[in-house]
Amino acid sequence: MKPATAAILLSCPEQPGVVARLAGFLASRGGNITHSDNHTDFAAGLFLTRIEWQLDGFELPRAEIPIAFAPLGAELGAEWSIAYSDVIPRVAIFVSRQDHCLLDLLWRHRAGELHAEIPLVVSNHDVLRSAVEREGIEYAHVPVARGSKQETEERELRLLADHRIDLVVLAKYMQVLSDDFIARAPRVINIHHSFLPAFVGGRPYHQAYDRGVKIIGATAHFVTPELDAGPIIEQDVARVSHRDGVGDLIRNGKDLERVVLARAVRLHLRNRVLVYGNRTVVFA
Amino acid sequence: MKPATAAILLSCPEQPGVVARLAGFLASRGGNITHSDNHTDFAAGLFLTRIEWQLDGFELPRAEIPIAFAPLGAELGAEWSIAYSDVIPRVAIFVSRQDHCLLDLLWRHRAGELHAEIPLVVSNHDVLRSAVEREGIEYAHVPVARGSKQETEERELRLLADHRIDLVVLAKYMQVLSDDFIARAPRVINIHHSFLPAFVGGRPYHQAYDRGVKIIGATAHFVTPELDAGPIIEQDVARVSHRDGVGDLIRNGKDLERVVLARAVRLHLRNRVLVYGNRTVVFA
Amino acid sequence: MKPATAAILLSCPEQPGVVARLAGFLASRGGNITHSDNHTDFAAGLFLTRIEWQLDGFELPRAEIPIAFAPLGAELGAEWSIAYSDVIPRVAIFVSRQDHCLLDLLWRHRAGELHAEIPLVVSNHDVLRSAVEREGIEYAHVPVARGSKQETEERELRLLADHRIDLVVLAKYMQVLSDDFIARAPRVINIHHSFLPAFVGGRPYHQAYDRGVKIIGATAHFVTPELDAGPIIEQDVARVSHRDGVGDLIRNGKDLERVVLARAVRLHLRNRVLVYGNRTVVFA
Amino acid sequence: MKPATAAILLSCPEQPGVVARLAGFLASRGGNITHSDNHTDFAAGLFLTRIEWQLDGFELPRAEIPIAFAPLGAELGAEWSIAYSDVIPRVAIFVSRQDHCLLDLLWRHRAGELHAEIPLVVSNHDVLRSAVEREGIEYAHVPVARGSKQETEERELRLLADHRIDLVVLAKYMQVLSDDFIARAPRVINIHHSFLPAFVGGRPYHQAYDRGVKIIGATAHFVTPELDAGPIIEQDVARVSHRDGVGDLIRNGKDLERVVLARAVRLHLRNRVLVYGNRTVVFA
Repeated sequence: MKPATAAILLSCPEQPGVVARLAGFLASRGGNITHSDNHTDFAAGLFLTRIEWQLDGFELPRAEIPIAFAPLGAELGAEWSIAYSDVIPRVAIFVSRQDHCLLDLLWRHRAGELHAEIPLVVSNHDVLRSAVEREGIEYAHVPVARGSKQETEERELRLLADHRIDLVVLAKYMQVLSDDFIARAPRVINIHHSFLPAFVGGRPYHQAYDRGVKIIGATAHFVTPELDAGPIIEQDVARVSHRDGVGDLIRNGKDLERVVLARAVRLHLRNRVLVYGNRTVVFA
Repeated sequence: MKPATAAILLSCPEQPGVVARLAGFLASRGGNITHSDNHTDFAAGLFLTRIEWQLDGFELPRAEIPIAFAPLGAELGAEWSIAYSDVIPRVAIFVSRQDHCLLDLLWRHRAGELHAEIPLVVSNHDVLRSAVEREGIEYAHVPVARGSKQETEERELRLLADHRIDLVVLAKYMQVLSDDFIARAPRVINIHHSFLPAFVGGRPYHQAYDRGVKIIGATAHFVTPELDAGPIIEQDVARVSHRDGVGDLIRNGKDLERVVLARAVRLHLRNRVLVYGNRTVVFA
Repeated sequence: MKPATAAILLSCPEQPGVVARLAGFLASRGGNITHSDNHTDFAAGLFLTRIEWQLDGFELPRAEIPIAFAPLGAELGAEWSIAYSDVIPRVAIFVSRQDHCLLDLLWRHRAGELHAEIPLVVSNHDVLRSAVEREGIEYAHVPVARGSKQETEERELRLLADHRIDLVVLAKYMQVLSDDFIARAPRVINIHHSFLPAFVGGRPYHQAYDRGVKIIGATAHFVTPELDAGPIIEQDVARVSHRDGVGDLIRNGKDLERVVLARAVRLHLRNRVLVYGNRTVVFA
Repeated sequence: MKPATAAILLSCPEQPGVVARLAGFLASRGGNITHSDNHTDFAAGLFLTRIEWQLDGFELPRAEIPIAFAPLGAELGAEWSIAYSDVIPRVAIFVSRQDHCLLDLLWRHRAGELHAEIPLVVSNHDVLRSAVEREGIEYAHVPVARGSKQETEERELRLLADHRIDLVVLAKYMQVLSDDFIARAPRVINIHHSFLPAFVGGRPYHQAYDRGVKIIGATAHFVTPELDAGPIIEQDVARVSHRDGVGDLIRNGKDLERVVLARAVRLHLRNRVLVYGNRTVVFA
């Protein structure tokens, strides 16, 4: 097993000496940096960085790191968060009827590709239960009835709290979440079956077919109150031709969706994605 | 030099025996088919085909081919057109200030990649004259003043007529054409600097930057009265990252634009593109 | 359910009138062509075609089609085969320890993407039994011991015969097949974990890492006696960077492998792949 | 105009505190870091970094920077080089008969995409003179006769020295350079018309056609004595099909070649490429 590391994601106004001060903070306490990457968005006047260092040999006990760092963070006017490589995030997957993204994530989890525990799958249908339960994962069937949205979401939020979930992955969950849910839930990543911002809303493959595009795409993004408009984490595309009907677009799109969603989830779980405004920096 | 061929592009309602009747029409007159490809759009109930055959050995003189074919075309309820490989289409290129697509087309023309003559370049600016004239091509400076659009377009249409132009290529021509111009001009192909239908309208790279996309694109399409909504011929994309500012998107986009436009123009010049409704079949 | 069709794959020396004669053969017997595509390889002097027609309304009973077609095939000097859309090919999957391609094929089979039955999985290890048996598929553990290759292959050939297998898919089967096995087995499709012909032989991701490539690939091909040199059906690639170690190349490569293999198998099962010499025509 | 910056490319054995020491060296002298990115190759035990900082406000005069840095570099056991954004590298382009890469580089130079001066084009043929001279660039025709290679290369080396060339770009220069030339010339970047290491040596598109690949590629790499085996800077690919003959592969390949070469040259000119062993780190 790899020795534990800590990783800070930080954004602050552009100013001289930030790298030196951050690196100096760590070096003076025996922190050995194993990865650092930064980016300056000159248009926004922001410095954005990710620094990872080994906890072995670092003088501060884990609980004191945020306390010790806070004054420097404040001086820099920074927003920041720290994550530890040996703290395994807990993920809940939301699905409807389509299984391709769910099965793909479960397979990657079993194959050790995802730095996560998956204690919970939530669905508004009861069709995927056996595929989930045979992995030893709880399957919560939370039907969505007309007029019961608020109740449904309350129940989902309780499930997330009970399972101490850090990340919700919408793996083809065909329901729109309320602003209230988004505000109270942990981070939510969604896979949208188009090359956003083309074809927002419903039935994007039908829209793509009607428009006669030669390339289709998929987009993984953080969910925000504005539908299909949250910060993009990852996108990919595939070529299609006039020979492809809507059914072919859907089938080829599934291959895109599961790969794009898995990449985005994996990047986020490894603390590689920094959000600022409606944009992401992906320290890949 | 390759022996001359004729190519028919045809669409008709789906019905039994079309391939046999078309192939029989040619075979019974000594026509040797060198390429045939067809597609059935079951949703639209349409049969779409391209057939190319050698004129050498074909019993009909060229002038009689359309006359002889018309009855069969009528029986099939078909729309069709016939082109000859030794009739070189005449192309006019419209540009504004940016030169990358223009220079690329001129280079490909010189390199023998384009089955076309290019007797005319039209521009609303006078900045690219020398690059055009040194190729022995006429450069017509047709300024566009506020309120003079109709006059301008009349002058352009006369230029197209005088030079017997078969195809207009908008190689980063930053003017919107009127419906009247589109109705009266020959076929017009445009390059749009986004992955349509994302980012229609102006400043697509700025829009793409603001949306934080991870992939940019370019789209070549036939021009129709509805802006940026005509049948798509070709699209391609390139990956970008948070490190790319608007300037980088524009620079990388130029590489896409010139390749995508050139591919679309080349396909059309070789009679490989069949339009039906707002879609294309590309017999590549 | 779609009405049944027949599809012929045919190659013959280039000659006048082939399309008309083939289409005429079908039309004169009431055959309605739903797809036809052809290609002339001028370098090889070969005409290559795929024609699909509806059996409903076709005057010949199925058993007589090859008999009736044989004289025309002989006149053309053609090699040809006919397949029927309602005859479901029977596929055996060979695996070793890695499960990603196997699970992907099983999922696609369940999702209705593959026009096939999968009655048999063969493995030289016993580690993937449960994933196979829970799909109701027989799992044959055929260990390969030093010096027992011939016996092993005899046992495998018997299994293929007993299950009336039409296609063997090597889904990361890490054994080299003997020439004798290849000669006696039905068609075999393999997935090679590199962009052939780069990195033939063992440990291609290690080779790719050592060479410092910026793009990795995967290749699906028919198996022939010469290792990794059979006709290529499909390839795809993914971009990598200096940040990717061998482990990352392997992980990203798996995503390529399963998609490329699935596409190749699907194309072959739909009779879209015509082999001539060491090349394929993919009528996609 | 952007204010001048300095950029250091450095590799050294992995050790604690490197980032802090490097950043501290700059911060203590008033250096404001605008870009820093690093990578640890754990397999090779190497730390590799690029740091760029503003010269405005930096306390050391330019001439003293290397002297002041040398002790720290030595302590770290580092190899390093420093470049300045306002020192424009001088590039010589070598060509034979094909013009597409040359014209592309000349166009990009004129468009301001390349951070370089181009005072010299060398060719073993005299066919591209006018395209070069009309840009105000010297065209040196240095014919290569059988048995005169050494003389030829001496003449070329003198030209490089006379023009104080920093980088040689082989833009489809179809001659093999001697080990002696490579040792004595400045850095040389070559474009190879295949997806290396597939199809090393001559006529790669013919090789690709014969192998029946479904994707072709191009590779830009630094030239080393071993033919086609130097460190890869950039690669890209394009999809082809059975319909593409050798001529089509060549034409499509040209589009790849010019884009891949231009990207590699641009990255190198902006000091973004660090070579170690036979690999590159591209700080893109």
